[in-house]
Amino acid sequence: MKINVLTLFPDMFTPLQVSMLGRALEDKKWDLNLVNFRDFTTDVHHHVDDTPYGGGAGMVLQIMPIKKALDSLEKKGKVIITAPQGKTFNQKMAKRWADEEQDLTFICGHYEGFDQRVYEMADEVVSIGDYVLTGGELPTMSMIDATVRLLPGVLGNSASAVEESFSHGLLEYPQYTRPAEFEGMKVPEVLMSGNHGKIAEWRLKEALRNTLLRRPDLLENREFTPEESKLLTEIKLELENKN
Amino acid sequence: MKINVLTLFPDMFTPLQVSMLGRALEDKKWDLNLVNFRDFTTDVHHHVDDTPYGGGAGMVLQIMPIKKALDSLEKKGKVIITAPQGKTFNQKMAKRWADEEQDLTFICGHYEGFDQRVYEMADEVVSIGDYVLTGGELPTMSMIDATVRLLPGVLGNSASAVEESFSHGLLEYPQYTRPAEFEGMKVPEVLMSGNHGKIAEWRLKEALRNTLLRRPDLLENREFTPEESKLLTEIKLELENKN
Repeated sequence: MKINVLTLFPDMFTPLQVSMLGRALEDKKWDLNLVNFRDFTTDVHHHVDDTPYGGGAGMVLQIMPIKKALDSLEKKGKVIITAPQGKTFNQKMAKRWADEEQDLTFICGHYEGFDQRVYEMADEVVSIGDYVLTGGELPTMSMIDATVRLLPGVLGNSASAVEESFSHGLLEYPQYTRPAEFEGMKVPEVLMSGNHGKIAEWRLKEALRNTLLRRPDLLENREFTPEESKLLTEIKLELENKN
Repeated sequence: MKINVLTLFPDMFTPLQVSMLGRALEDKKWDLNLVNFRDFTTDVHHHVDDTPYGGGAGMVLQIMPIKKALDSLEKKGKVIITAPQGKTFNQKMAKRWADEEQDLTFICGHYEGFDQRVYEMADEVVSIGDYVLTGGELPTMSMIDATVRLLPGVLGNSASAVEESFSHGLLEYPQYTRPAEFEGMKVPEVLMSGNHGKIAEWRLKEALRNTLLRRPDLLENREFTPEESKLLTEIKLELENKN
């Protein structure tokens, strides 16, 4: 997968060039092409923004340099912009991009909004959540991270990806490692029992409990196995007795 | 505000050190303290992780180096960890942190989950959304960005912050800047009319339309002004006539 990013701050993209994503970049499992759209301005001062029609505070990013930068790309593939009015980014979207797209192009705003006509050039307008950031760079990096790590050969231990949260529709069960006791905080005994059946049951139960307590919405359209239904009944009984 | 970050990848944090947040850092509007918790390991190989009790793929980040790194901080303030089971991060949370906290400490995992006892040391467990990332660094940077930009004196043009999305509970109205026509795409005439009353009404109406079409949930508990109610009725009529 080749990923193009149109940004005024190409230097911000170091997080994608270290650790696992950086190694995958070196191994050519994916490719990152950072394009500064300020290079496509035609005025001597290299302005990328201008005052809004109709007045008001702030500046608006112009369509022209962005369009020229887009046109300069060899293959742009799906063009994505982050904006609060977009569909909220989630794991399904990352999976779809990883599975179906050859090329992706992200356009990052900074401080300011885009001229509305920039949004109209995008194939997808995506929101990263209900909060305001200085620019599109951090959300774009998050979307790239979530997508690239699903590409073949990127994750070192491919088993990990499958076992992780959201992949199976439940939150994770709690994990523990050495020491068995730390400042009075102990590891649950079942995990040290060596009884694999019991351990698997405990983990499924705690994953269900985590999900029920913190993200009940994830359970709403789920089809439960008989074991899951039994464990969920136990959990609800335990919670009632606690109150 | 002083922000501590416990991470295995302090080099990833360049995005916070350029542009507006970088200038605010230089101007001492906030302070960033990056702590590599690998420096607090006691074994010769500086391991920070170990196999999970109970077996299974992957490794688990140990409590000990993280606890020692936390204990080394002068003032840690509120301790925050990102995890899928947390409360979803939003603008209100950023505002609360910016208004009420003197110090914040973020703990970033990488690849792997934490020993459950690490979560128990945190004051807040926060989710950044329903997707899986390689590490906690990018979400942590997003939360820091959203929070720091609300601190006094950080945003250059303080009017911008107020006018932005979510602050007033509606999505933004469309913005346009020069040129008035670009490859056949025109700026709405009202914005070039100079009639400020009409422009304000158009903007409110388009903000309402954007919100109704894309985030109707934001309107659910809203108290509408008489003007907003009138415009909303117009919009709904327009949408009906369109179908």
